[in-house]
Amino acid sequence: MQEIQFSECVQACMTCSLACTNCASSCLKEEHLEMMRECIQRCLDCSDLCQLCARMTQKQSPFMKQICELCAKACDYCVEECGHHEDEHCQQCAEACRRCAEKCRKMAA
Amino acid sequence: MQEIQFSECVQACMTCSLACTNCASSCLKEEHLEMMRECIQRCLDCSDLCQLCARMTQKQSPFMKQICELCAKACDYCVEECGHHEDEHCQQCAEACRRCAEKCRKMAA
Amino acid sequence: MQEIQFSECVQACMTCSLACTNCASSCLKEEHLEMMRECIQRCLDCSDLCQLCARMTQKQSPFMKQICELCAKACDYCVEECGHHEDEHCQQCAEACRRCAEKCRKMAA
Amino acid sequence: MQEIQFSECVQACMTCSLACTNCASSCLKEEHLEMMRECIQRCLDCSDLCQLCARMTQKQSPFMKQICELCAKACDYCVEECGHHEDEHCQQCAEACRRCAEKCRKMAA
Repeated sequence: MQEIQFSECVQACMTCSLACTNCASSCLKEEHLEMMRECIQRCLDCSDLCQLCARMTQKQSPFMKQICELCAKACDYCVEECGHHEDEHCQQCAEACRRCAEKCRKMAA
Repeated sequence: MQEIQFSECVQACMTCSLACTNCASSCLKEEHLEMMRECIQRCLDCSDLCQLCARMTQKQSPFMKQICELCAKACDYCVEECGHHEDEHCQQCAEACRRCAEKCRKMAA
Repeated sequence: MQEIQFSECVQACMTCSLACTNCASSCLKEEHLEMMRECIQRCLDCSDLCQLCARMTQKQSPFMKQICELCAKACDYCVEECGHHEDEHCQQCAEACRRCAEKCRKMAA
Repeated sequence: MQEIQFSECVQACMTCSLACTNCASSCLKEEHLEMMRECIQRCLDCSDLCQLCARMTQKQSPFMKQICELCAKACDYCVEECGHHEDEHCQQCAEACRRCAEKCRKMAA
């Protein structure tokens, strides 16, 4: 029996959701917390949206395209902030968000 | 820059959550729906618990071990039902649940 | 000290999310399960979207208006199906969805 | 037709989940952010657990008692921190957590 294979979009959403969780949680432990307010907020929103988007896309919900479109926007918005921080968790998060935005836009098209 | 690497437990929880979503959603389209009641219910519970467990484990929350333990039980309970159905989505879900239960138990130990 | 007061939109989303959970879960126990496929699927989607919408609206996330708009559509879509069933859980769910759609549309405006 | 009535436990979990979301999100905007690290982390965990607990309790899931028990612990842990801060959002959150812990323990008994 074959293992379940997820689409690239579902895979990217799962990865991004947890990269955002990781980033928010790591930011909360940083010395330079003051600079991380915006990053934490955006990561938390993005993590929740990606989690829902992975589920809706896996189910091929009638709302799949609309949630993918919104998810891509939340990813862009997260990159806009995370991309400016040199912390490794921020760079990894930004990378996961870029990939997720790309896959979600393809799905929404 | 390296891509984010998830622990085996986090990876197994993500995979299992979506395998359960997939199974519940596929069951709802089966001709033999009547036999699938219990499978759908268990998959929905397991999907939600795995999703939370992936997040809590990624964050290394103080509740990580306890949620891993509960998640392993939900996986066992799901296998107990899914494992009896020959549908491919059920077999894939059972396999993902077995693996997730194993990884969660290691984490909870 | 005053208890926390939620906005009408947040309150309606919380209520609707759980009315949908209740409806899906009750449908799965009905004798006439065969007629309930569509109702269950729509309720599950709507419950997840309402849950996220309550959270995003409470936080006044930058994605609040967009998620409210999408949530209202999921509520309409759920009513379209639930509204046709006479089961009490379906009628209650339809009522919660109608109210939630209205409050979300006001918020999105 | 009657509106859906939630049990005291479900109601308390919904309220607590959103009070925690509100508290975490408000903490992130406070001038004294440095003191709020722990509060934010605990509120985020508690919000997620309460959200799941409300859903599981509404469904009367076989895991209801175990999730209620864990939810009560997360609420206690949140109060332990929030209860020390004078900010209104912290006081409201602590109050919601105390009530939720009580109702969850009754349900778990």
